[in-house]
Amino acid sequence: MTGSEPIIDDLLNAFCKDSTAHLPGSATGPLSGLTFAAKDIFDVAGHVTGGGNPDWKTTHDPAQNTAWSVRVLVDAGATMIGKTITDELTRGILGENSHYGTPVNPRAPGRVPGGSSSGSASAVAGGLVDFSLGSDTGGSVRIPASFCGLYGLRPTHGRIPLDGIVLQAPSYDTIGWFAREPEIFARVGKVLLQSNVVQARPRGLVIAEDAFEVADKAVAEALRPAVDLVVSLVGHSTTLTLAPAGFAPWVEQQQVLQSREGWETAQDWIDQVNPRFSFRVSEGYLTARDISDAQVVAAKSVRETVIERMDAVCPEGTIVCLPTAPTPAPTTGQRLSTLRNLQRRITTLTCTAGATGRPQISLPVAEVDGLPVGLSLIGPVDYDEGLIAFALEVASALKPLTF
Amino acid sequence: MTGSEPIIDDLLNAFCKDSTAHLPGSATGPLSGLTFAAKDIFDVAGHVTGGGNPDWKTTHDPAQNTAWSVRVLVDAGATMIGKTITDELTRGILGENSHYGTPVNPRAPGRVPGGSSSGSASAVAGGLVDFSLGSDTGGSVRIPASFCGLYGLRPTHGRIPLDGIVLQAPSYDTIGWFAREPEIFARVGKVLLQSNVVQARPRGLVIAEDAFEVADKAVAEALRPAVDLVVSLVGHSTTLTLAPAGFAPWVEQQQVLQSREGWETAQDWIDQVNPRFSFRVSEGYLTARDISDAQVVAAKSVRETVIERMDAVCPEGTIVCLPTAPTPAPTTGQRLSTLRNLQRRITTLTCTAGATGRPQISLPVAEVDGLPVGLSLIGPVDYDEGLIAFALEVASALKPLTF
Repeated sequence: MTGSEPIIDDLLNAFCKDSTAHLPGSATGPLSGLTFAAKDIFDVAGHVTGGGNPDWKTTHDPAQNTAWSVRVLVDAGATMIGKTITDELTRGILGENSHYGTPVNPRAPGRVPGGSSSGSASAVAGGLVDFSLGSDTGGSVRIPASFCGLYGLRPTHGRIPLDGIVLQAPSYDTIGWFAREPEIFARVGKVLLQSNVVQARPRGLVIAEDAFEVADKAVAEALRPAVDLVVSLVGHSTTLTLAPAGFAPWVEQQQVLQSREGWETAQDWIDQVNPRFSFRVSEGYLTARDISDAQVVAAKSVRETVIERMDAVCPEGTIVCLPTAPTPAPTTGQRLSTLRNLQRRITTLTCTAGATGRPQISLPVAEVDGLPVGLSLIGPVDYDEGLIAFALEVASALKPLTF
Repeated sequence: MTGSEPIIDDLLNAFCKDSTAHLPGSATGPLSGLTFAAKDIFDVAGHVTGGGNPDWKTTHDPAQNTAWSVRVLVDAGATMIGKTITDELTRGILGENSHYGTPVNPRAPGRVPGGSSSGSASAVAGGLVDFSLGSDTGGSVRIPASFCGLYGLRPTHGRIPLDGIVLQAPSYDTIGWFAREPEIFARVGKVLLQSNVVQARPRGLVIAEDAFEVADKAVAEALRPAVDLVVSLVGHSTTLTLAPAGFAPWVEQQQVLQSREGWETAQDWIDQVNPRFSFRVSEGYLTARDISDAQVVAAKSVRETVIERMDAVCPEGTIVCLPTAPTPAPTTGQRLSTLRNLQRRITTLTCTAGATGRPQISLPVAEVDGLPVGLSLIGPVDYDEGLIAFALEVASALKPLTF
């Protein structure tokens, strides 16, 4: 199944050094001539999926089958040239892997690429591939897209089959992708979503005022021209508070439910292997182990509240706009105590799509001091094609501007 | 300061591969002609002390000075031939290091050597050196001595200066040593204790009945001939319950206070470095982080109770005998959930000396199915020389028996 495996000139530390995988694309197809990479949680038959952790790698056999999402891309003509570094078992939002190093953020040197789809974002941003596969459970496509200046989609939960990937928290896990060019981004989307459906343009826009307040003032200001453009393209907008009682309980539900599912997924392997994790990753699992059933019940109830709220403010035909991340990419090597606070702020902005299963696209439309920051659009469930098509419109209207 | 560094033929994985240190002994002295190794928490000038963790190693500079205990041994004529593998930052009682592997237990193949002074015990048991330095905070000399069939002493707290070692929990940390031969064990003791004092033979013996009940029945039975011998050497004995209200609070105080001190020692470095630990080690630190001040106050009160109880049953001239460990060395690679229970049972037997600062010596006097098990003697504070001299008597009386 795998062909010859050329050496990638990877100055970005985006690719796994010990996990090559080369799958030549079909001769013809809509993605013919394009190259891509996949986060090292996607199975490729005959290769061990590393999951960003050396002990995961040595305790697993080579995959029997290639992940569905990889297969359809190769069948559509794209050539997979390698596997990319991921945060350990997708646990992380910044992209610092203590075992394999931090992939370079080509758009923000000295700063993290974002995670957990760190290597996939780095490889695309650095021009090593045309597009790449990632996964998004709590923000792992959206955040690296914002930090690295890329297009990135967290699709509607369940739209892209998860078979053949290392799962984290199944009721939140999604497969997403990155590209620099909106046209390529859209072509890949048609293959992964298996859809040529043309959805109606958005008829309503909600500007989530409280989400913009979570972001650094400089980020909110940098995004303003793009927001104005989106308003003009949709035709009108409503500014409102997305979480009238504050985002704190929304963040809490994401942390409780995602963590609990993550612990349930991993606990037997951890008990058996006693794996080496960076301290931060163990901390996440151990916090999850202590979550009570009562906390889970409360969090599920909050999750319903989020779904109801979004159904109310974002019915069919309406999209919500908000900053993807509260800051540009932070510098590498910061203290854990600093990162904990940052991670919480990030989750404040990512948890809405996670809780509701709605699709969210991040558009690389602004910079703060030369560092990319993304604008996000959340759509109704199954409005993935509509979001992508609208992203093309925005990109086209922005072309005179240079980012 | 360091000389040439010959390659050690180490089939036991006892020595650090990436941390050599060779210090030729002085030409004359009481230890002239002997070789030793030191756990990789002892500083040797010009070498980075690894502490059993690769991230500790890369974030520390070479030591400026050589640890006091290493210096006095070299000055006394012993040649240091290398540094030995330790559990990460001395956190562990079994000797399985996820980064550097598990040193072989030459006396019990397929089983752990005990930790955290794992490589030091392995090197001595396998005959690679005459003796070795370890440290004992919660049992890290006594347990490997028992598992590997060696003499090992946890000295009176404070007897051997701790300068130049990686500390864990200062109010429990001690430096100890291992030897196969009781005479060598005693000669090393004179140097490390800086003492030629001859202390009176023990006049009283307490058999800690409840401690024998903690051990496997086979262990208690295997130790019986040695206990009978000790009784006959002392002349008479008292059998009693050491912890009338049970060992549970004694174990709890050790876990609370040692863990809390361990966390206080390490937390700033952990926050800064986000180090890779095996899951078990992070679990220990994170459990400690959650310990409340009220728990500390309660534990300190229990510690006083242990001290008072030991003062009552073990006054000057009296020693206590108990099994060093509840089982022979367990097999390698067991599940964390299994090991947690075992570790608690082990602490039940090690916590008395820890809480009281009393010296405890483990004597390799028995076997269960061919696996070594040690008998321990706890003495009054500063009765180290007396315990060592009495160990020589026991060894001499046991000589007709073969272990």
